[in-house]
Amino acid sequence: MKEKITKPSILPGFMELLPNEQISFNNIKDVIISNYEKAGFIPLDTPVIEKSEVLLAKGGGETEKQVYRFDKGDTDLSLRFDLTVPLARYVSQHFSDLKFPFRRYQISKVFRGERNQKGRFREFYQCDIDIVGHNDLSLMNDAEIPSIIYSIFKELNFGDFKIKMNHRKILNGFFEYLKIEDKTLALRILDKIDKIGLEAVQKELSEIGVDDKSLKKVEEFIKINGDSNQIIKSLKSIGIENEEFKQGVFELEEVIKYISAFEVPNDYYEIDLKIARGLDYYTGMVYETFLTEYQSIGSVCSGGRYENLAGYYTKQKLPGVGISIGLTRLFYQLNEAKLLDLSYHTKTKALILPMQDEFIVDAIELTSKLRKQGIISQTLSEKMKFAKKMDYANKLGIPKVIILGEDEIKSKKYALKDMKTSTQELKTLEEICEILK
Amino acid sequence: MKEKITKPSILPGFMELLPNEQISFNNIKDVIISNYEKAGFIPLDTPVIEKSEVLLAKGGGETEKQVYRFDKGDTDLSLRFDLTVPLARYVSQHFSDLKFPFRRYQISKVFRGERNQKGRFREFYQCDIDIVGHNDLSLMNDAEIPSIIYSIFKELNFGDFKIKMNHRKILNGFFEYLKIEDKTLALRILDKIDKIGLEAVQKELSEIGVDDKSLKKVEEFIKINGDSNQIIKSLKSIGIENEEFKQGVFELEEVIKYISAFEVPNDYYEIDLKIARGLDYYTGMVYETFLTEYQSIGSVCSGGRYENLAGYYTKQKLPGVGISIGLTRLFYQLNEAKLLDLSYHTKTKALILPMQDEFIVDAIELTSKLRKQGIISQTLSEKMKFAKKMDYANKLGIPKVIILGEDEIKSKKYALKDMKTSTQELKTLEEICEILK
Repeated sequence: MKEKITKPSILPGFMELLPNEQISFNNIKDVIISNYEKAGFIPLDTPVIEKSEVLLAKGGGETEKQVYRFDKGDTDLSLRFDLTVPLARYVSQHFSDLKFPFRRYQISKVFRGERNQKGRFREFYQCDIDIVGHNDLSLMNDAEIPSIIYSIFKELNFGDFKIKMNHRKILNGFFEYLKIEDKTLALRILDKIDKIGLEAVQKELSEIGVDDKSLKKVEEFIKINGDSNQIIKSLKSIGIENEEFKQGVFELEEVIKYISAFEVPNDYYEIDLKIARGLDYYTGMVYETFLTEYQSIGSVCSGGRYENLAGYYTKQKLPGVGISIGLTRLFYQLNEAKLLDLSYHTKTKALILPMQDEFIVDAIELTSKLRKQGIISQTLSEKMKFAKKMDYANKLGIPKVIILGEDEIKSKKYALKDMKTSTQELKTLEEICEILK
Repeated sequence: MKEKITKPSILPGFMELLPNEQISFNNIKDVIISNYEKAGFIPLDTPVIEKSEVLLAKGGGETEKQVYRFDKGDTDLSLRFDLTVPLARYVSQHFSDLKFPFRRYQISKVFRGERNQKGRFREFYQCDIDIVGHNDLSLMNDAEIPSIIYSIFKELNFGDFKIKMNHRKILNGFFEYLKIEDKTLALRILDKIDKIGLEAVQKELSEIGVDDKSLKKVEEFIKINGDSNQIIKSLKSIGIENEEFKQGVFELEEVIKYISAFEVPNDYYEIDLKIARGLDYYTGMVYETFLTEYQSIGSVCSGGRYENLAGYYTKQKLPGVGISIGLTRLFYQLNEAKLLDLSYHTKTKALILPMQDEFIVDAIELTSKLRKQGIISQTLSEKMKFAKKMDYANKLGIPKVIILGEDEIKSKKYALKDMKTSTQELKTLEEICEILK
């Protein structure tokens, strides 16, 4: 029977990794998970497909155009485009079954039919944590978020990084003080400052009616610097008296105090009054995280505090604070920057080679014993030349090979070959376990 | 601003779990992953969305009707409906970058728009492993598969279970011997024997032209029993001389020998000549797994050997052997059977309660220290009554609460309360770490 052959390929904008990349990707994901779990976040796993009327209840915005939406039978379906809307839906739907504050993490793929562009993905992982309160949520939680970012990126070890923080009430209070009417628009303009620079921001602000005196104040405000305590001192003495501003400064000061209690070293976080996250629904603290040596990647982890998560689904007031790591994009960028260890194409630590078919049983027994000790191992019993078997171990990055010939089986001492040094020694099973552990 | 409230709900046929269920689900998933990894399988993660022309290249069949297929722009897209077709596509597409035998696992959601029915899911996890060879694949691998099933279900501890095995060449050879023309149809009929019984199977076979003498032989064949070695002995002495049959018996005997070397106890596997897996593309060993006390669940883990994985995508001959665990359905059934421990709504082991706001900093410091020791812990600093905080710990299943009052902070001895026994003792941080580890 001759079969028609279809050229195997995947869609543009979708990431698929080779084994060594996937292992590296999963190592990063595991670090994120273990740090999320250590802080008491529980895993959630919402459906990929939801009812369009529910998922898109909030409506509008750029995102909606990108949603993968389709009918199946009579049902209007959509693929999730983020993990925040499903969380809002989840806590509303299961409100009476949950205890608040509710800490959840979700690491799942989301889908956006974006314009095709290098480094942009249509299917990508988000790694979200949120702490959702009922009616109120202590500022302790706002400090815990950067402490988790710190522990993750410290463990990931991609060099220095900085968590930049700001407070929306400070920005809003400041805009109020400047008598700017459209504060949301002003936020969006300010948000662009790293891309377009101060002058261009001032120009855009003047176009929405901000006078020269106020533009000068924007400049002064933006240029407030120093360590966290100095910035807070400056903000207190700047002479802005409106309540929102003062509340923002108070909250920021509390959060900074708690961050320090979480033992996040000073070098790893700073207040940056330019951080706005203008397009988002944040109402309090906002966070962005930058890898010092790879600023061009942009923020690798962003988030903030929101006053009410789920107004579209419930009358319950559910304030929360959370962050998201865009893992697919981060991985892509780290890979492009050659920052990843890609030398392992398998997790196997020992490859057992029976030299003849009659030794396969012995090889299997040895493999079983190693696995019982938690050592990832496998038997290679294919009819391949010895050199090809060595090549297999080499190419996959398996560090040790155990060779089973007649002498080895009789003496119960096995030839343990180190693939890096090419040295070979006779060892008992116990000795091999000790070495491989 | 008054918002319109949309009732939060998900689609029928989609599983979404509460925290305690999700924790239990993930525990099962983690056992599967760790056993897959211990045997040297590497993780793969193919896209959810693929090109329809590629994903459906094989075409036909019941499954195609169930596929979630839609257009986005000019592109005809489909959601994956299993993990085998993406694997075939992957190994073909990346053939030159892979080393064979290639061991991969993939634990991912797949999507099938099935008729809505209790216990059937439209979005569900499959947990697949496959070992894919190039041109040939040693029978050692066919024995390793049941050894992995064994280690997983042993660790999951849902009571006794039995891995049932058969060999397609034995069945085909037997049908050949009976001169049955449509062997695939005969396989499908035989596959139904557990549901419809021997008589109904014989009736259906007679309808496709099997004569009475042969029907009698079917009965004798099906009733061959004993332990694995006895069955193989019976098969050898049954007087069937065709090559396919003899090859099947030879291979089955080899596999049984190797399974024993993998230290799978005899009680956990058996040859069952009725196992056919009629609808699948298997050509050698086939496997099904049954929980002894929950037979009604059906097979919880099935698979087999196939001669050529990816004929639709490549000219390379890629034989393989693999299994799949339908985790979503398995979890649903175990949950229905009340077999799961659902007492933990969080993974947090210690809840730290500052009695006044001024102790929040101390509480955070204590939490940080515990986390550094790997102890999952969290501070609850909300303005809640003490009884409500206790209720929070109780309902979530947090085993220990640490209470921070003035005396505790001064003396550096903290009140450690055991939520099960309701006893409370003063302990140093070191003592608490020791207890919680």
